[in-house]
Amino acid sequence: MNILITNDDGIHAPGIIALKNHLSQIANVLVVAPDTERSAVGHAITLSDPLRVSEIEKDGEFFGFAVNGTPADCVKLGLRCLATEPVDLVASGINLGPNTATNIIYSGTVSAAAEAVIMGFPGLAISLTSFDIPEFEYAGLLARQLARKIIDNGLPEGTLLNVNVPPVKPEEIKGIVITRQGKGRFEEFFDKRVDPNNRTYYWLAGKRMNIDYEDDVDEVVIRQNKVSITPIRYDLTDVSMLNELSQWNIIP
Amino acid sequence: MNILITNDDGIHAPGIIALKNHLSQIANVLVVAPDTERSAVGHAITLSDPLRVSEIEKDGEFFGFAVNGTPADCVKLGLRCLATEPVDLVASGINLGPNTATNIIYSGTVSAAAEAVIMGFPGLAISLTSFDIPEFEYAGLLARQLARKIIDNGLPEGTLLNVNVPPVKPEEIKGIVITRQGKGRFEEFFDKRVDPNNRTYYWLAGKRMNIDYEDDVDEVVIRQNKVSITPIRYDLTDVSMLNELSQWNIIP
Repeated sequence: MNILITNDDGIHAPGIIALKNHLSQIANVLVVAPDTERSAVGHAITLSDPLRVSEIEKDGEFFGFAVNGTPADCVKLGLRCLATEPVDLVASGINLGPNTATNIIYSGTVSAAAEAVIMGFPGLAISLTSFDIPEFEYAGLLARQLARKIIDNGLPEGTLLNVNVPPVKPEEIKGIVITRQGKGRFEEFFDKRVDPNNRTYYWLAGKRMNIDYEDDVDEVVIRQNKVSITPIRYDLTDVSMLNELSQWNIIP
Repeated sequence: MNILITNDDGIHAPGIIALKNHLSQIANVLVVAPDTERSAVGHAITLSDPLRVSEIEKDGEFFGFAVNGTPADCVKLGLRCLATEPVDLVASGINLGPNTATNIIYSGTVSAAAEAVIMGFPGLAISLTSFDIPEFEYAGLLARQLARKIIDNGLPEGTLLNVNVPPVKPEEIKGIVITRQGKGRFEEFFDKRVDPNNRTYYWLAGKRMNIDYEDDVDEVVIRQNKVSITPIRYDLTDVSMLNELSQWNIIP
């Protein structure tokens, strides 16, 4: 079994080290990850600049390839150029911070798994919803089991699994729930400041809004201290709107 | 009527000038756009860096605000900080190049309209599918009419319209079709090169694959020289997979 591993926190993040440790117990793993943090890059790809690859060592051994690009770039380059064996799964994470609800759209972690499924490979994204409790052991075990199940059972073409682990210790986790993507987003504002050279700048800030309450929604499940597993696909057509639109009588 | 205009080709691109010219005939328009080209940035937002805003003049008059960020940044900053009146619509374009099928996921143009709908505002993305025939007049007229219809009829919460104009002269356009997002993607490869300093680099290249054939799919409609209008929403749950997944019996 061959697994390609990436993330959006960068190749030196503790989450990707934990993921590699766990998955290398069941498969050959190849790490191809951004050379620095690339959070909130969405599904960006690099078209106008060259990509460069460096070999990274940890503890005197080859750890993986660092790329000066986005998570989606890493998946493309990993699958097309760097992998020497057929890849069975692309796993992305372990991310620090939730990738639930509207956040999924901004997520570099999830976009890496999405790039995999676009290219025809199964994809798995896994995140810890806490920035404060980097407890990777449980998430690593879960990733290991899911990797095996994905490879055994398969996933529908175009579908990835997006996994979020609640911000508690493993013994406090109350179960695992298959969920839908929530609608929650950030209540955002810009902090307007003046720099030491007297120039104005804006910095995005905000706090998460709780607007989902159904028991099968990713954000709700996390609030209940359960693991959320959401099947995600990027078929964006609003099918329910097709009929109405055809009655708009559009003639420029 | 107040319309916020943005794009991903940057504030100096001819497409955004054309869009402003057309929409300012039916509304007050505010341009907030990236200071340089930001194509293929997906739904990236800038969290780790300050955003700066400059006022841009064209022909001796105020044209709009340039932002050192992504299209999604421009929409956030425009709606939260720069607009002084309530905004009725966010329009993104006129893009040079198609935003159809899998490309929608990488598109900065579409992500700007998506950011609008996430924030609760109607969104419209409009693209010319040709890089070679910058014939903005028809697309501008179409944008003007669609803007009016969106504001009159409304769009469902969370839905935007993604419009693509075929690569022919206006008199050769064979109609307007309401479409679904196709599955076509690029057959990609990396060109591996060596720079003048003898370092290796990779450059992404590829050509579009035609894998859609149904008459109601965005890419097919464009090949038939018709305008494609697709209602898009970012509800990514693969509903058909929910049941199967719940039988996977996942226990780490």
